[in-house]
Amino acid sequence: MPLAPHPDRLLPPEPSQRGIARRLYESVRDLPLISPHGHVDARLLATDEAFTDPASLLVTPDHYVTRLLHSHGVPMADLGLRDSTGDTAPAQPREVWRTFCEHWHLFLGTASRGWLEAELHDVLGVTVQPSADTADELFDELTARLREPEFRPRALHDSFAIAALATTDDPADDLSHHRALAEDPSWSGRVVPTFRPDRYLDATGSGWTAALDDLAAASGIGTGDYDGLVQALEDRREHFRAHGATATDHSAPDARMAFLDIAEARRLFDAVRSGTATTEDARLLSQQLLGEMARMSSEDGMVMALHTGSRRNHHPDTMRRFGPDTGHDIPLQAEFTRALQPVLERFGTNPRFQTVLFTLDETVFSRELAPLAGFYPSVYLGAPWWFLDAPRAMHRFRDAVTETAGFYRSAGFIDDTRGFCSIPARHDTARRVDAAHLAGLVAEHVLSEDDAARVIHDLHDRQPRKAFRL
Amino acid sequence: MPLAPHPDRLLPPEPSQRGIARRLYESVRDLPLISPHGHVDARLLATDEAFTDPASLLVTPDHYVTRLLHSHGVPMADLGLRDSTGDTAPAQPREVWRTFCEHWHLFLGTASRGWLEAELHDVLGVTVQPSADTADELFDELTARLREPEFRPRALHDSFAIAALATTDDPADDLSHHRALAEDPSWSGRVVPTFRPDRYLDATGSGWTAALDDLAAASGIGTGDYDGLVQALEDRREHFRAHGATATDHSAPDARMAFLDIAEARRLFDAVRSGTATTEDARLLSQQLLGEMARMSSEDGMVMALHTGSRRNHHPDTMRRFGPDTGHDIPLQAEFTRALQPVLERFGTNPRFQTVLFTLDETVFSRELAPLAGFYPSVYLGAPWWFLDAPRAMHRFRDAVTETAGFYRSAGFIDDTRGFCSIPARHDTARRVDAAHLAGLVAEHVLSEDDAARVIHDLHDRQPRKAFRL
Amino acid sequence: MPLAPHPDRLLPPEPSQRGIARRLYESVRDLPLISPHGHVDARLLATDEAFTDPASLLVTPDHYVTRLLHSHGVPMADLGLRDSTGDTAPAQPREVWRTFCEHWHLFLGTASRGWLEAELHDVLGVTVQPSADTADELFDELTARLREPEFRPRALHDSFAIAALATTDDPADDLSHHRALAEDPSWSGRVVPTFRPDRYLDATGSGWTAALDDLAAASGIGTGDYDGLVQALEDRREHFRAHGATATDHSAPDARMAFLDIAEARRLFDAVRSGTATTEDARLLSQQLLGEMARMSSEDGMVMALHTGSRRNHHPDTMRRFGPDTGHDIPLQAEFTRALQPVLERFGTNPRFQTVLFTLDETVFSRELAPLAGFYPSVYLGAPWWFLDAPRAMHRFRDAVTETAGFYRSAGFIDDTRGFCSIPARHDTARRVDAAHLAGLVAEHVLSEDDAARVIHDLHDRQPRKAFRL
Repeated sequence: MPLAPHPDRLLPPEPSQRGIARRLYESVRDLPLISPHGHVDARLLATDEAFTDPASLLVTPDHYVTRLLHSHGVPMADLGLRDSTGDTAPAQPREVWRTFCEHWHLFLGTASRGWLEAELHDVLGVTVQPSADTADELFDELTARLREPEFRPRALHDSFAIAALATTDDPADDLSHHRALAEDPSWSGRVVPTFRPDRYLDATGSGWTAALDDLAAASGIGTGDYDGLVQALEDRREHFRAHGATATDHSAPDARMAFLDIAEARRLFDAVRSGTATTEDARLLSQQLLGEMARMSSEDGMVMALHTGSRRNHHPDTMRRFGPDTGHDIPLQAEFTRALQPVLERFGTNPRFQTVLFTLDETVFSRELAPLAGFYPSVYLGAPWWFLDAPRAMHRFRDAVTETAGFYRSAGFIDDTRGFCSIPARHDTARRVDAAHLAGLVAEHVLSEDDAARVIHDLHDRQPRKAFRL
Repeated sequence: MPLAPHPDRLLPPEPSQRGIARRLYESVRDLPLISPHGHVDARLLATDEAFTDPASLLVTPDHYVTRLLHSHGVPMADLGLRDSTGDTAPAQPREVWRTFCEHWHLFLGTASRGWLEAELHDVLGVTVQPSADTADELFDELTARLREPEFRPRALHDSFAIAALATTDDPADDLSHHRALAEDPSWSGRVVPTFRPDRYLDATGSGWTAALDDLAAASGIGTGDYDGLVQALEDRREHFRAHGATATDHSAPDARMAFLDIAEARRLFDAVRSGTATTEDARLLSQQLLGEMARMSSEDGMVMALHTGSRRNHHPDTMRRFGPDTGHDIPLQAEFTRALQPVLERFGTNPRFQTVLFTLDETVFSRELAPLAGFYPSVYLGAPWWFLDAPRAMHRFRDAVTETAGFYRSAGFIDDTRGFCSIPARHDTARRVDAAHLAGLVAEHVLSEDDAARVIHDLHDRQPRKAFRL
Repeated sequence: MPLAPHPDRLLPPEPSQRGIARRLYESVRDLPLISPHGHVDARLLATDEAFTDPASLLVTPDHYVTRLLHSHGVPMADLGLRDSTGDTAPAQPREVWRTFCEHWHLFLGTASRGWLEAELHDVLGVTVQPSADTADELFDELTARLREPEFRPRALHDSFAIAALATTDDPADDLSHHRALAEDPSWSGRVVPTFRPDRYLDATGSGWTAALDDLAAASGIGTGDYDGLVQALEDRREHFRAHGATATDHSAPDARMAFLDIAEARRLFDAVRSGTATTEDARLLSQQLLGEMARMSSEDGMVMALHTGSRRNHHPDTMRRFGPDTGHDIPLQAEFTRALQPVLERFGTNPRFQTVLFTLDETVFSRELAPLAGFYPSVYLGAPWWFLDAPRAMHRFRDAVTETAGFYRSAGFIDDTRGFCSIPARHDTARRVDAAHLAGLVAEHVLSEDDAARVIHDLHDRQPRKAFRL
């Protein structure tokens, strides 16, 4: 069976709409990519080491792929994941690839299938469908190809036409790879860090104390009291800004922030630090620290991206054996209207403050996010994220928010990917879906094709730059 | 750029469906308008004073418009809103209009854009797009036109073919404008008041005591105790019915009602009145008073329209400076199944009692509202309201409720508008969307075109009359 | 007016999609029916008694039909329901049928209308629309037809091509009708029981003590203490498995399960049994007993179907007079992520354990159910159920889950019906909708038509067999 993604894929089948959609898509297909949030490691581009094989590139590190195979009974170790208990041994890449190819049809209809088809065909030049029969041949072909110079990370980066790429980094990171890239005369790309302080803000977890020590080491500022922690965080934000960062990124259970008086904040810090606090105290301190991030954003102008609402590590045994980010983070119901009132009361109309809101719960699109973004100049609608970063979900997002907030309160697209080769596939999917969506509106005479062309260009260029201050 | 709304706008692009939709739309396009809920002031028609200029008509009083411009950084005062602190001065109408025209593209895709295009073109005869270049010319053209006799409120009322218009009124209102209209031999329209007692029922707010005094003054009945308040409310309902009212309208945080024994209700009243009550007491008293409204409806037959679920005045600074209804009421998650059980247990099958349920949270359409309306004869499905009063949201509403409740448990359309000229635009939008929706079902052979024609006629005539007893 | 359901009904109107959809539909139209969950009584097939008349067959026992007529003011007794208070007398079947026919247009657009049209036309050979004019003629025609041999239950069963039918049975049932069928040499169908222990697990209700006595009588095991109840339930599960059961089915307010230590469970049991428990104790004991069901499933391999989230008997007066299942069970907001964590922590990757999740709240499709089924091999996505078992809702279900979980974590279709003649109509509807849905994806080049043909076949054969271990 040939692998040949259709040139009109994801465009509307009805002829009058397809023509409009094609023209809109063509008008943005080759625009340089703006990637304001993702999980590519700057080291990848700084060192430019070749990828080794298709399993290590496309399967093992992609929790979208491994979780679905796991749901069909494939053990994690068979997908190359390392079991920290040593009970099971990770399969070799060729074995992992075979398993993946044998289960290829299970991905039919998923977002991953579309990205993988595009990665295999458009990026890696594959022209046959993965299957039990073709697995070995494909493994050999791809392993050889990945050693060629034009498949090295930097060459791919250039061929993808990435205009700006934001990584996601720990505040204690020295950002040496970002610096190396900036100082490398042979490198002309733009790779900026993003300040992701989750483990320093989450005072409910067992790792918090160790995190504070790491932060103290990185900043040279004692983090043994509340004021020290705040100062150390401010110091590291400045370090990140000096390396080009324009945004912070936050994963929290929900969007609540606290703005306690300083004495109460200090008391909570000391209680948690000394182990005498209740769970509720620790949660409140975490909300207070997230509130401090908002306050700092209102001063230093770093955009605050909020990714909330995931119940992390739902299956403790998988967490224990294979660690986090292995496919069992499950969404929770979201609430923003009440949760964000305190921060928006303070900073909602402050021109320095800017936040981009992401959700795993699509019920808030029309109910809460569009109304908030339709009033507060500081609030941008994040793109459909995780579990919703797929064609039908993207249509639902546009349907749900546009009638209230228009197109110009949207932050455009983020790829949020750990898979370097999926970057162009994901942006291409988003451009196709936006073209399809706008073509439907043009065909219904809601807006003109000229207006739609302006909108789709802005959605893939101006809006993400503006929302993330890139 | 010309402004020329397409005759087929909002109809399905696919040719076989478009033909059906056109025929269905034509069959109801010119039906007289039934407007059972809105915010037009009876004074407008009683005095018939000319509108002054397009900014005062279309921009400043429309919080759909001002909030979106505000979200793009335009200060409220620049839109003509009066700042009670005096910190900023309101712009003059011509300046407001310029600001609006310069930002015209930000409305692309919104419900407001569609209404505004129809108002400008179909009602006011504008044929060029608003823009920085055309703003002054349009301002002059429209200001002149609004002084012509056929653009006075009564002339527009007649040209809109409004068969029945319900206003929204304070129980203390003497309804003199309604009476003036009724007694005016030169006036043949039907304008009825709606009893909107929110401020008398909300015992949690600071304005409650003053409200009780107003009510006492209007009714001549002392409101210093629970029984007096109840009696005064009954008296004012009778006053409203005598002026043609058929419905009451309620904005509450949620749909919960209490049915306490009278001693407990009196105790709560006295506690709140004397300032010794807890917040929870005040909330319970508010729910008890809403329950009294239901009880009165079960006796006097006034339809109880429930508009719940908004977090009012989310941004305190804007509230303080520009007052309520300025675009920062943000929806909350809704719940009806549990909340309505007590009232429906009492009155759900009582033929005198009737309620129309509105929601800002579309998740309840399929989950709660359609099942409730699909069992209780007293429950009607309100039209998609505020933030959901837009084409795609209307389609989602019909998709969500019809398979459970059919078309005949729906209350048809309400325009809920503060903008007099938007009335025909909003009804036209609803008729187009219903035609499009039904055409899709006809094309899928779910119902015949004859049945669809009967349904769309009923949705825009019989159903709103029946649901609101008009 | 003729009654002639269109051969292309529910297929997409756009020509290129309709062609694909037709071919996909044709490929599964005549597949034998797998019905892993429903409410047909085994007695019906064991005794093979003729149906008496169309009202008793299609109206009175179908709460989808009676609730909608009730919502239009038709008293339950007029639909043939028996009022236990004796205040109203049930109408005779001919009267019931007349009432139904007069109100036929109120069903336009509902799921019931589609099923009823198919039952009347395809199963019962009716060719005129029900109406006041045709009611008597239809009543006579159908009453006569139902006496013919080919309209007896067994003959219909064969003509419906039912390959497997699961009934829903009380654990105290001796399953004599199932045994009779199994031992009948003239019967070649497959009818298996399903273990539905709700009344033994719900310790919050007044009927629990009597239920325990019934269970003791059926099992011969004392249920006066916790260990006895658990043992009796295990005994009855074994009895059911011996009669072919492969699944248990549970209606609970929500999906929470408790896994207390045995001493605490015994204490709760004794407290509830002796009437000294709090409501919260009784709720916790109910959750503990549901947890025991999961534990037993992880041992005996019976699939655990969870149907949660209904507020039963919302209108007490209707409950008192006409009993349960009369149309006033109203859905509640659902939550699965937190609720299922304890059971999935224990058994989520246990290959013996399997659960099929159903919901009345479609917001959990994309947010919780697809992510859970996209990781846990034990979790299957139940078909859109009750209030969502309709064409547009089925499309929303597929849109919401497929991009995350693919097609192969879905349990296919269940009819869940009390109406024997609606079985083929409901499966046909599901096959049409799946064909329409897949045709849309094929036309958008998301998958090939060959892949779609494989998927639709699996959805209506392999997936339900696998999910329910049939």
